[in-house]
Amino acid sequence: MSRIAYVNGRYVPHRGASVHIEDRGYQFADGVYEVIAVVDGALIDEPRHLERLAYSLGELKIKPPMADGPLRIVMREVLRRNRVRNGMIYLQVTRGRAPRDHGFPKSSEPALVMTARGAKPGRAKLLANGVSVVSAPDIRWERCDIKSISLLPNVLAKQAAAEAGAYECWQIDVDGYVTEGSASNAWIITDKDEIVTRAPTHDILNGITRRAVIDLAGQEGLTHVERPFTLEEAQGAREAFLTSTTSHVLPVVKIAGKTVADGKPGPLTLRLEGNYADFIKSAA
Amino acid sequence: MSRIAYVNGRYVPHRGASVHIEDRGYQFADGVYEVIAVVDGALIDEPRHLERLAYSLGELKIKPPMADGPLRIVMREVLRRNRVRNGMIYLQVTRGRAPRDHGFPKSSEPALVMTARGAKPGRAKLLANGVSVVSAPDIRWERCDIKSISLLPNVLAKQAAAEAGAYECWQIDVDGYVTEGSASNAWIITDKDEIVTRAPTHDILNGITRRAVIDLAGQEGLTHVERPFTLEEAQGAREAFLTSTTSHVLPVVKIAGKTVADGKPGPLTLRLEGNYADFIKSAA
Repeated sequence: MSRIAYVNGRYVPHRGASVHIEDRGYQFADGVYEVIAVVDGALIDEPRHLERLAYSLGELKIKPPMADGPLRIVMREVLRRNRVRNGMIYLQVTRGRAPRDHGFPKSSEPALVMTARGAKPGRAKLLANGVSVVSAPDIRWERCDIKSISLLPNVLAKQAAAEAGAYECWQIDVDGYVTEGSASNAWIITDKDEIVTRAPTHDILNGITRRAVIDLAGQEGLTHVERPFTLEEAQGAREAFLTSTTSHVLPVVKIAGKTVADGKPGPLTLRLEGNYADFIKSAA
Repeated sequence: MSRIAYVNGRYVPHRGASVHIEDRGYQFADGVYEVIAVVDGALIDEPRHLERLAYSLGELKIKPPMADGPLRIVMREVLRRNRVRNGMIYLQVTRGRAPRDHGFPKSSEPALVMTARGAKPGRAKLLANGVSVVSAPDIRWERCDIKSISLLPNVLAKQAAAEAGAYECWQIDVDGYVTEGSASNAWIITDKDEIVTRAPTHDILNGITRRAVIDLAGQEGLTHVERPFTLEEAQGAREAFLTSTTSHVLPVVKIAGKTVADGKPGPLTLRLEGNYADFIKSAA
């Protein structure tokens, strides 16, 4: 069965799915995106993803391509046509096509593209062994709260991780604090069993999995603290982990060459991972 | 006559010119571009543009889509097919098409897109009256020396200018110094007739027109200084101007609401503009 993509109102074979060369997403990175996990056919945390999509669009003054109701229907149709029951849906909205000029065009219709794909194998092993992260200066722009497609610095950070044989790259701000990974949020657990992650300012993307884990920690009676931490504090922490829509909760066992604690996934991390897995199952 | 675009080896009608939705330029802003002015059929400062293209590609480890020789031939063919003798050529190179994943794909062929268009009217009036600029914090990433398509912050800056009825937006770094405009370099002329612009670090794009104007100032025996300046210094300067491939040299007569000197294009600016116009004619 060939994959199908949704492009501006049409369901088309993925292989030939295309956008105009003057789509502002292609020339200016003038657009935003969301990735939503799909489990047993259910879109996990869909309302929060749609809410964040609306936020990103609003901050950039891009008109929503359609209302949430129709959008939800199209997402389900994309999943159905691709027979994806477990995996993810990717959706991208740009300011649309217009003759090239930096400022917003007087009139352009937002462009909407959607694809779906099955879950990648290999997560069980990552969960069992934990993952390594490297670090690099955070060279991104100052509006990382917007989930924009202006992802070139994230690409470079992720590539730095790949070249070092690591899973992710934690980015460090000018004051020496970790902001987040190239495509995930960063967490540590202190000696006092505090679960620590950076507050959702303009410096980071407020991950949907991040928010779910905060909720779950609260339900478990665990102490959650939003504050920045340095790479050194993370290296010396009791546990460390990362979160994202596609990674869920993954233990971090090595940070910039230093082994965290005994180098094995931490017990509290695994408990949160289990809670998150339960949450997903209950949502599905 | 309909416009023609060059897209990955083919000359196609501009109206239907498209790239795949998984071209990394569309999903990650993973690409670079150049804009080259065309005067009487000649590509102005072509070697420097090609040199900068090679630099941008090299910094991102994107393979050049073709050697300079063939690239020069394709540019000329795009101009010919569009019958553009005066205007500009736009060329964009991305890392190409690959299944979505932040890190560099194991194998992808770079994508090359080219378009041409005739010169926009209206420059004579801008030159006669001078232009206004507004200011905004520089929120861009830390590698503005790479001419990447990761232009969303530039879009927002240019839009801020447009909404204020201004031509450009000068961006201000954390220390209070002007970096550059959203799509042009920023200059002032001091009471000592020093021509001042910021040094080409990672903070700005080293404009080709910027470099040409520095050369011309040298040939004229004018004093040129590379150093940062504040918005306040610019507002109190003897003259101010901006440079870009499409704007050439344009006098700036108002900066963030304050009139520069007597509010008319400055004599040294106009002299440099004339020199640059002569340079272009001699190159054409």
